Amino acid sequence: MKKKFKKVNAAILIIGNEILSGRTQDLNVSFISNWLNDSCGIKVEEVRIISDNEKIIIKTVNELRKKFNYVFTTGGIGPTHDDITAESISKAFKVKYEYHKEAFTILEKYYGKIKFNDGRKKMSKMPRGSRLIYNPSSAAPGFKIDNVFCLPGVPLILRSMIHNCLKYLKRGSKLYSTSINLITVESNIAKGLAKIQKKYKKEIDIGSYPFFRLGRIGVSIVLRSQNKHKINLCKKEILKDIVQKKKIKKV
Amino acid sequence: MKKKFKKVNAAILIIGNEILSGRTQDLNVSFISNWLNDSCGIKVEEVRIISDNEKIIIKTVNELRKKFNYVFTTGGIGPTHDDITAESISKAFKVKYEYHKEAFTILEKYYGKIKFNDGRKKMSKMPRGSRLIYNPSSAAPGFKIDNVFCLPGVPLILRSMIHNCLKYLKRGSKLYSTSINLITVESNIAKGLAKIQKKYKKEIDIGSYPFFRLGRIGVSIVLRSQNKHKINLCKKEILKDIVQKKKIKKV
Repeated sequence: MKKKFKKVNAAILIIGNEILSGRTQDLNVSFISNWLNDSCGIKVEEVRIISDNEKIIIKTVNELRKKFNYVFTTGGIGPTHDDITAESISKAFKVKYEYHKEAFTILEKYYGKIKFNDGRKKMSKMPRGSRLIYNPSSAAPGFKIDNVFCLPGVPLILRSMIHNCLKYLKRGSKLYSTSINLITVESNIAKGLAKIQKKYKKEIDIGSYPFFRLGRIGVSIVLRSQNKHKINLCKKEILKDIVQKKKIKKV
Repeated sequence: MKKKFKKVNAAILIIGNEILSGRTQDLNVSFISNWLNDSCGIKVEEVRIISDNEKIIIKTVNELRKKFNYVFTTGGIGPTHDDITAESISKAFKVKYEYHKEAFTILEKYYGKIKFNDGRKKMSKMPRGSRLIYNPSSAAPGFKIDNVFCLPGVPLILRSMIHNCLKYLKRGSKLYSTSINLITVESNIAKGLAKIQKKYKKEIDIGSYPFFRLGRIGVSIVLRSQNKHKINLCKKEILKDIVQKKKIKKV
């Protein structure tokens, strides 16, 4: 019997002038993408980085949430004037932007009534109907509305809370990958690899990536598929038909 | 007389499953964005990361090239089967995908006639009418067609050749930025900052970014504008009305 693989996909939307301007190096894309694949079998199929601009956020969120099973946004949910993600997403969903009772209580308890100023209160405002994504490191929760998950931009905080998205996510079949690292150049293996990719066109993505490490030039061949069995078959074929035949050294 | 500022914008399109899957950390966005701003006064206004998929590349390139003054792509111009950027962009522009004479000559000379195999020859195929972006580190040139610039994905190689895009680019007024680093929390300055941002709405983008460094919690306020004079005015105002008034420590 043929095994059926379940495909679930997602997009990541990085909201923030500081990433777009190059001032800050993004670290969230690779973390979220790896986490979604490893923990949930969800494949990230598109990433966008946009500025802190209400119109652009609304347009992009509405485009992505229709196109993918899930959308994960990062950034713009803090207390300052440039944190406009929650309000923009309320507008994207055409729902009220309002205090979330539970979020308000969490933050009031965390800061104490006296220190719970307007900026901090703002962090409990979100689209009506949102569910909370708890934040164990700095209290201010993220939220999810429908298939859109809103997380903070600070990588350490994001990493501490992402597992709290799990309960809201349906899972896909995990994407497996394996790599073969060779001391060769891409053009030496291009022809053989193209032939094998053609054969496994439907099940496996074969990627070829040059590397320069410790003074050595090499190529990483990466196989990706939801079908672990086919990955093993394909790997054997590459080792036999390309690596052995051409006497290429592995690392 | 009021000084006029020239705005030129761009999008970056990262093409590659290895970035999307999280396997490889992207380093090109921040480099290209900084370079475009510092060398050319060009502001990056959108970034997309997409997979090595012809249809998606064609659709995205056609969307971005109409929307922005320039588009910079990275990745997918090597010799292997998954390097489909040049062919996909030919299709996006509806022009022939063919050997570029000069690129062919450069690569034939670099590799020597005997070692100039099919994979290497492929690296000289590009959309008809392309202009070359020379590559001092590994010979294989990038190319530009109309307002789309195609660069390799390997950061070291990309960095060695990006200055060869300069001659094709019209420049905008440089975007200046300055930051004020404070030992405080965002919610302490949110109100004052929002007021000042409102005043300088038209000319200055004020960003506020929490940081955690050496055990200290702080906030970086970043001012960005093409108008250096206004940045200085705005900075003075923040120092006087927020930092001094609230007795906040600077770092």
